[in-house]
Amino acid sequence: MNDIQTLPQQAADCLARLRTRGPRIHCLMNTVVQKLVADGVTALGAIPSMTSSVEEIAEFAERADALLVNLGTLDADRRTANQLAVDVMNRRGRPWVLDPVKCDFSAVRMGFARDMAGQGPTVIRGNHGEIAALGALDRSLVVETGKTDRIRLGNRHIRIANGHPWMALVTGTGCLSGGAIAAFLSIEPDPLVAAASAMLAMGVAAEIAAQTSRGPGSFEPALLDALSLLNEKDILERARIEHAEG
Amino acid sequence: MNDIQTLPQQAADCLARLRTRGPRIHCLMNTVVQKLVADGVTALGAIPSMTSSVEEIAEFAERADALLVNLGTLDADRRTANQLAVDVMNRRGRPWVLDPVKCDFSAVRMGFARDMAGQGPTVIRGNHGEIAALGALDRSLVVETGKTDRIRLGNRHIRIANGHPWMALVTGTGCLSGGAIAAFLSIEPDPLVAAASAMLAMGVAAEIAAQTSRGPGSFEPALLDALSLLNEKDILERARIEHAEG
Amino acid sequence: MNDIQTLPQQAADCLARLRTRGPRIHCLMNTVVQKLVADGVTALGAIPSMTSSVEEIAEFAERADALLVNLGTLDADRRTANQLAVDVMNRRGRPWVLDPVKCDFSAVRMGFARDMAGQGPTVIRGNHGEIAALGALDRSLVVETGKTDRIRLGNRHIRIANGHPWMALVTGTGCLSGGAIAAFLSIEPDPLVAAASAMLAMGVAAEIAAQTSRGPGSFEPALLDALSLLNEKDILERARIEHAEG
Repeated sequence: MNDIQTLPQQAADCLARLRTRGPRIHCLMNTVVQKLVADGVTALGAIPSMTSSVEEIAEFAERADALLVNLGTLDADRRTANQLAVDVMNRRGRPWVLDPVKCDFSAVRMGFARDMAGQGPTVIRGNHGEIAALGALDRSLVVETGKTDRIRLGNRHIRIANGHPWMALVTGTGCLSGGAIAAFLSIEPDPLVAAASAMLAMGVAAEIAAQTSRGPGSFEPALLDALSLLNEKDILERARIEHAEG
Repeated sequence: MNDIQTLPQQAADCLARLRTRGPRIHCLMNTVVQKLVADGVTALGAIPSMTSSVEEIAEFAERADALLVNLGTLDADRRTANQLAVDVMNRRGRPWVLDPVKCDFSAVRMGFARDMAGQGPTVIRGNHGEIAALGALDRSLVVETGKTDRIRLGNRHIRIANGHPWMALVTGTGCLSGGAIAAFLSIEPDPLVAAASAMLAMGVAAEIAAQTSRGPGSFEPALLDALSLLNEKDILERARIEHAEG
Repeated sequence: MNDIQTLPQQAADCLARLRTRGPRIHCLMNTVVQKLVADGVTALGAIPSMTSSVEEIAEFAERADALLVNLGTLDADRRTANQLAVDVMNRRGRPWVLDPVKCDFSAVRMGFARDMAGQGPTVIRGNHGEIAALGALDRSLVVETGKTDRIRLGNRHIRIANGHPWMALVTGTGCLSGGAIAAFLSIEPDPLVAAASAMLAMGVAAEIAAQTSRGPGSFEPALLDALSLLNEKDILERARIEHAEG
């Protein structure tokens, strides 16, 4: 198990590596928050792409260093595109993140989320309701975001207490967490370190952003500024990580 | 007829109820402004959902306290999804809002807008050109937004003079008005009170937002801040409501 | 060849004309950046529309003063819509801009971009990789955006050095440049003057916006403010135009 005392420094190192390498992250994202996720992934130092065209997705996935599959938009074409992209990443042995958005809302969505979850995503990110509804997820690292973020893989459990309540009032910050996890996975082989780095970056940036915001509207551009300007000192000073009880 | 002198207090009460209850508002929204509408509905205290997948829409509509059908994106699948969602709301006797975006621009769109308008939306919201083009709309409350917002239902007519010219320069503020109306309809049975509350909330928030903005770009996050922070005192002090001449 | 010394004044005159006339610009835009492009085109003084429905696109194109075809979203329906819109503009002799987004990423996209490029767009806008991949483009004015923007048509070559590095960190500023070019083409028959005016407006506004921003997040609303408030004096004082070597 990682010593949680070293995680903030590992996160800062991961962020530096992310900015140096500028990996490509392909995001199969719901149409509502495509732009926020693209801007946030860019602010972290990675290069997002977003196409979901069935005819093109395999070529984009071949060039991607990591993939995010977000189920927020889920028509038949999108389901096909998701599968094609996952097949490429699994064949190439590259990491991918599943975000089963609102899988607890419809039977179609739950069926597809379970099917995707069974194909070995490196990380599954969701809120409490989504993760609970999905059931046992032994093969993937699970990130349950909320007031505190819970990260678990087998018997490794940690909890990150950073963040700000305005995140819940800006549509897409959860989806952007998925993009951040994919970005860190592309440059860090240990999924727990990658996911913890992503959640620390998001949570610390949110705290910094809130200091100069009046409400959720001004918080969103401030969050992008903070992600872009985030540095090692911010992470080391502000990180709040605990062993989780389970 | 409602006494227009009591409407500001009713609007403040509705806003308090909206924030306490946190109703679910499903928004079949054009892809251009999905995020602004989701953020604005959230800022008012409601919980938006946005899927337009034909296979899922009925399940989402079953859980929604009100529905917004915005015709800004209008391919064949979206038309099917719109109809499925309206069928659910009409069967359940729940309120829904029709926003016939640019129905005066294409024959296909006008045909579909007239068909939807004939299915008994609780409220139809549009600009002057859209409402004029749709023709007689006796069964629904009509909200015609513009420099002043006109609200009419049978022989009940009011006019709300709040707002700011920058609203017209931010794509989607009109669409967000539709979302606000749907949110207030979900907690207020009188559609005139609900629509007036929504337009007061939007107009008063816009005036507050403009005080701290430099132009339409900074006005948008400021509007979301103002919607989120809006309180009874703001509404009572700033509301400008008149009986309309017709 | 235009004297580059007169171009800033021509750009200021074009901007004034754009604001007086308020032309309609139809934007077949990728779903990621539809809202930014709509807001930016509005800030410049034009009226954007965005539908890509196959059944409606011809009617919208008939009413448009210029068209932007952005290949960022490229499924089968969108390709059909693109072709229908281009057919209308070519028949009407109205200007259109092709933005071959990431045509160097997939064979399908490159094939479609080459096909569109062969149909006589007034202007093709892309980054260095996209323009290089497309090959010879003799019939269209080419705008290659980057650190400096290069504009060429036959033996007319200029280079515009305005802009700010944060533009590259905000998803969609390049796409918005395409929208700005379409807007200026709608009121200026010389494509070189129109394209130079658009790139000056974007670049000068970006420099102004950066002065009041902390990072790419706050830069985006500031850019929209600056586009909306841009005036002749800003352009004349800040324009940096050079003859290009080729």
